[in-house]
Amino acid sequence: MKEVIAEIVTIGDEILFGQITDTNSQWLAEQLGLLGIKVKRKVSVGDEQSELLQIFKESEGRADIIILTGGLGPTSDDITKPALCLHFNCGLKMDEQVLEHVTEFFEKRNRPMLEVNRQQAAIPEKSRVLFNEMGTAPGLWLEKMGKVFIALPGVPYEMKEIMRSSGLPELKKYFNPPVILHKVIRTVGLGESFLAENIKDWESELPEHIKLAYLPSPGMVKLRLTAKGDTEAVLLKELNYQTEKVNKLIGKYIFGEGGLELEQAIGNLLIEKKLTISTAESCTGGNISSILTSVPGSSTYFKGSIVAYDNNVKIRQLKVKPSTLNEFGAVSEQTVLEMAKNVREILETDIAIAVSGVAGPGGGTEEKPVGTIWIAYSDQNQTIAKKLNLTKDRKLNIKLTTVIALNFVRENLGQGL
Amino acid sequence: MKEVIAEIVTIGDEILFGQITDTNSQWLAEQLGLLGIKVKRKVSVGDEQSELLQIFKESEGRADIIILTGGLGPTSDDITKPALCLHFNCGLKMDEQVLEHVTEFFEKRNRPMLEVNRQQAAIPEKSRVLFNEMGTAPGLWLEKMGKVFIALPGVPYEMKEIMRSSGLPELKKYFNPPVILHKVIRTVGLGESFLAENIKDWESELPEHIKLAYLPSPGMVKLRLTAKGDTEAVLLKELNYQTEKVNKLIGKYIFGEGGLELEQAIGNLLIEKKLTISTAESCTGGNISSILTSVPGSSTYFKGSIVAYDNNVKIRQLKVKPSTLNEFGAVSEQTVLEMAKNVREILETDIAIAVSGVAGPGGGTEEKPVGTIWIAYSDQNQTIAKKLNLTKDRKLNIKLTTVIALNFVRENLGQGL
Repeated sequence: MKEVIAEIVTIGDEILFGQITDTNSQWLAEQLGLLGIKVKRKVSVGDEQSELLQIFKESEGRADIIILTGGLGPTSDDITKPALCLHFNCGLKMDEQVLEHVTEFFEKRNRPMLEVNRQQAAIPEKSRVLFNEMGTAPGLWLEKMGKVFIALPGVPYEMKEIMRSSGLPELKKYFNPPVILHKVIRTVGLGESFLAENIKDWESELPEHIKLAYLPSPGMVKLRLTAKGDTEAVLLKELNYQTEKVNKLIGKYIFGEGGLELEQAIGNLLIEKKLTISTAESCTGGNISSILTSVPGSSTYFKGSIVAYDNNVKIRQLKVKPSTLNEFGAVSEQTVLEMAKNVREILETDIAIAVSGVAGPGGGTEEKPVGTIWIAYSDQNQTIAKKLNLTKDRKLNIKLTTVIALNFVRENLGQGL
Repeated sequence: MKEVIAEIVTIGDEILFGQITDTNSQWLAEQLGLLGIKVKRKVSVGDEQSELLQIFKESEGRADIIILTGGLGPTSDDITKPALCLHFNCGLKMDEQVLEHVTEFFEKRNRPMLEVNRQQAAIPEKSRVLFNEMGTAPGLWLEKMGKVFIALPGVPYEMKEIMRSSGLPELKKYFNPPVILHKVIRTVGLGESFLAENIKDWESELPEHIKLAYLPSPGMVKLRLTAKGDTEAVLLKELNYQTEKVNKLIGKYIFGEGGLELEQAIGNLLIEKKLTISTAESCTGGNISSILTSVPGSSTYFKGSIVAYDNNVKIRQLKVKPSTLNEFGAVSEQTVLEMAKNVREILETDIAIAVSGVAGPGGGTEEKPVGTIWIAYSDQNQTIAKKLNLTKDRKLNIKLTTVIALNFVRENLGQGL
């Protein structure tokens, strides 16, 4: 089972200089991975022909497939076609089908067609066209001693359409790569190293053809299993078996699989249990509410929030007792318990979460340093709180508190309300 | 004036396999560019040591600076330190300062420290530490015959903090690149092509050594002027002169310069005018509140918000008349005017903004399709509203509405309250 290796080369000053984020190579790597083609490198270069020619030579020495994006446009800084002509030692030819398509493209839009537009239909003699239904620059396919070069326009929707309709199917036919399957297990509430500690025996017993990767983000870790083999059905079964095994070890930290976000998982739980939710937020300033409502259809379970930055708003809108604020302060277990219980009653929801803390950079004291944050959960049976000791960074504190508060809901919903 | 060349190497299967978008290399390219260091290539590789070693050799043949991100974590798939040891032909040593920092990091959080965590403090003997205030994996600086390798953790906020506090200043000292000055002019409320049309004569008259770039984001455009020369004072004077000229053309769309965000500009205006603000939000779900409170010190002017997703919350907490909702609907000029005026009175602030709309993807009608959003501004003298016709994309609609609502405040505060 020979591995098929690809490299992706993105071309353009705007990527190198950091003026746009390259999303093309992410999409391409994912699609090639699903085909069982392994991307071993991605390279970005500017609009410099000599650099590009050097990369062609290097890449074809290492990879079976070289995919180029960008630099196919009609202006003088578009260098991909001239570089391909030099590398493949050939000239340009006019492709009649493309010329017809480009001509029609301009006629339909009632725009005059210039000589530069006509040049879109000129392609390297040794290439053939991967037709571009969505625009004027065609994709190109070139072969050289078993290696394939594919050149694609940089405009994402044009690039994707060409790959979907012809590039990917033709690569699959040409190389017949092994099957690769991925499964992503999403966890929250345990740091990367503790997670690793909990599953290290399982990890070390994984068969050779199944690999594990840890992908951490604030408060969360994704575990990605990648399996390689000949038969999709067999791999699927193996991945499911391994998922069951790891679920026995760290099940309580797993909130979902694949592309499911934590806020979507919470939303699904709330819908399933027919429950509504509200929040009372001080230091998170509405971020929990904003994340909850980022999910389409969240109006089914989310009713509203009271963002109480000012103590008067805590007293008047959230009915926190002035004596509680005086005696224990705004950042205290007592205050956050009242906030959660009261917002649940005031907004008439089944459950509620509340947050009060010192996000920083100012406002810390010796007793309550920056990063001291109280969160509370309330439902009809209980109102409970816990204290977090987070970081010195305001944005990170807000992000972490949001994740931990959502997880606090999940932990309690899991208990069966 | 010798050009200083850098290459950026991002390490990790998750980037190669397209499971996360690499934003690190974009930020790094931009920051290095600001220092006058030219990024000529970016390369992404997976967690494979032999690949990484090959790239080290290639990159140091072409570039003066090789910046690595990722692969510095505590798990077995983290290959950067072992690869550096092989390339620099040295072993690992324990760094006492880092060990102390890591130990303290775990003690503060009341978490046990594992052997893998201790290993975070082990660094290649030929490296020195670029201290990581925000996490446990230190940045590393290594030199080899005038070339510099910098290894950074992959977590964006840790990477950025290390580069800001030590990496970038030390690179500047080591290579002393030509003087490059940048000035960023931040605009809101006018699209890129209209902005370009308004300033095209000014742009065409810019001197050869001053370049202009348009950096658009939802609702906003940054104009970046880049001047290259020998003397900082001269360049500064030229940039100020050009800024004054462009200010005459599009002054009313300019809210600030440099790194100033719109929410900071609003905060500064509120502080200057000694005014307080609140919000009443439906379709933005607390996002405006969350953006306003992302600014350190925002408690000076921000009092609170009522997120009223549910119509009952609009009626009870925001005192919107049921007849208004019945007659005109939640997404209407009448409703949003009441929301703004009432939240200002209820939360006792000087000004307020309110939002109600159809963010999508569901909920649209023929009369009020997805993207129909009403926003209102209220102060003691006036309460005014305007209608937006935005996109079909939920996240983009929330983002655009937030920017437009903040700009609505700015436009009205500018009139002198």
